[in-house]
Amino acid sequence: MKSDTETTTGAISIAPVRYALCVEYAGAAYHGWQAQKTGNVTSVQATLERALSRIANEPVSVVCAGRTDAGVNGTYQIIHFDSRARRDERAWVLGTNSHLPDDIAVRWARQVDERFHARFSARERRYRYLIYSAPVKPALLARGITWTYKALDVGRMNAGAVHLVGEHDFTSYRAVGCQAKSPIREVRALEVYRSGELIVIDVRANAFLHHMVRNIAGVLMKIGAGEAEPGWAEEVLHARDRRQGGITAPPWGLYFVDVDYPAEFGLPASSLGPFFLDRAE
Amino acid sequence: MKSDTETTTGAISIAPVRYALCVEYAGAAYHGWQAQKTGNVTSVQATLERALSRIANEPVSVVCAGRTDAGVNGTYQIIHFDSRARRDERAWVLGTNSHLPDDIAVRWARQVDERFHARFSARERRYRYLIYSAPVKPALLARGITWTYKALDVGRMNAGAVHLVGEHDFTSYRAVGCQAKSPIREVRALEVYRSGELIVIDVRANAFLHHMVRNIAGVLMKIGAGEAEPGWAEEVLHARDRRQGGITAPPWGLYFVDVDYPAEFGLPASSLGPFFLDRAE
Repeated sequence: MKSDTETTTGAISIAPVRYALCVEYAGAAYHGWQAQKTGNVTSVQATLERALSRIANEPVSVVCAGRTDAGVNGTYQIIHFDSRARRDERAWVLGTNSHLPDDIAVRWARQVDERFHARFSARERRYRYLIYSAPVKPALLARGITWTYKALDVGRMNAGAVHLVGEHDFTSYRAVGCQAKSPIREVRALEVYRSGELIVIDVRANAFLHHMVRNIAGVLMKIGAGEAEPGWAEEVLHARDRRQGGITAPPWGLYFVDVDYPAEFGLPASSLGPFFLDRAE
Repeated sequence: MKSDTETTTGAISIAPVRYALCVEYAGAAYHGWQAQKTGNVTSVQATLERALSRIANEPVSVVCAGRTDAGVNGTYQIIHFDSRARRDERAWVLGTNSHLPDDIAVRWARQVDERFHARFSARERRYRYLIYSAPVKPALLARGITWTYKALDVGRMNAGAVHLVGEHDFTSYRAVGCQAKSPIREVRALEVYRSGELIVIDVRANAFLHHMVRNIAGVLMKIGAGEAEPGWAEEVLHARDRRQGGITAPPWGLYFVDVDYPAEFGLPASSLGPFFLDRAE
């Protein structure tokens, strides 16, 4: 998609253009998606903006589909930004990747209509939570899965999960500090299944509250371990009290794997992920 | 297996006993299996010996089935050591793991006959080399797979691999500094297959020379990319000259996954690995 103002050396033109990018990252080494104002720890967003700014030759600020916490991974985090720099999709992908560390990668880039907004155009998000249940800890992917020594019963977990599907007040499943105005969210699908040696919690919702997936995972793992009955997931929901909700499961096993946008924006579909789990579904 | 000298507090008895352990590790953070005499970088072996020594309350030195290079991973590295400390298998596994970092884990432990030797009792070793072939780099498992932007033809790779099966002089496939007395090794199986989004080179031999799997991978990847014909694998073999062998593939995708010992020693079989690849074979 060339414009009159484009040059092969990437000169800056006057009107900004909007780009959408898909970003994959292993969250273990980062404070989270968003930069903290204090401290030395770095964020995925700050690392990405630094790399994009080098390709754009001007400062780039990005907006994401969903902010993820420290340690949380993404295979289909969508961002948008406006830039006066004209670069082709290959430059945004390969150029940016050459300035990124091993654990962050731009997977694709598209020039998009200016009505596209990574956050506000999103109609649905999807997460997968990967659990390795075995008596002895694994050494591989130690920061890419959640390990529990407890045996989990997937049938029980699904029996608990069913109570959370639908539009509900998820106060009991959100972090105390969650800043969303409303605790109402619509969970459109929530399933637990085995994929090889892993157990996967797969959840889709219009949007998620802070810690919502990890709090759901914490409750379902307790039910799966036989420490609570499946109906407890509903009791917690109805309590509308975070203190009833048990522990927040660790971030390591959590992957942000899909965002649904209107087809008119023409973005590539998610292959879901993570890639080593492709049998799933 | 209790002895007269055992006490519940783990007192030291007089006669040493031999233990065999299975160790899994992600090699990215280590210099390699074996400690270097110089420098600050640590080794898997030194880290493991430190943890074992704490459980044994005496210095422990281990012997392994096969030393792996910096960055190389293991899912079934077998070690043995002798200790006067009597501990049950649970203590060697869970106790040692509590002193190990996230990327090293003892998977099981067995008290074994003193005739067992992790290196000399081994009749066969097996490695898997994982390749992610895609135009854009992955961010997940960045140090647990080998990425190439080139498209690889598995059929061509297998056509090359077949030339290496059997007993051969592998001089062209070993590191120049390899200290093995003989360059003769018997490759008993060498197959290339797809497993989901990964390509796996799976190789079994009585033993391996230094860099042998990575040099084989380097040659097969070049053949798979169409940069050399399958017969080149044989030409390289017959040249008996490392300089003919092309590049040494990176360590990241390499996993030491199995060792074959006589059944009389009663060691648990390998589930092969890595665990996220369990569909393979």
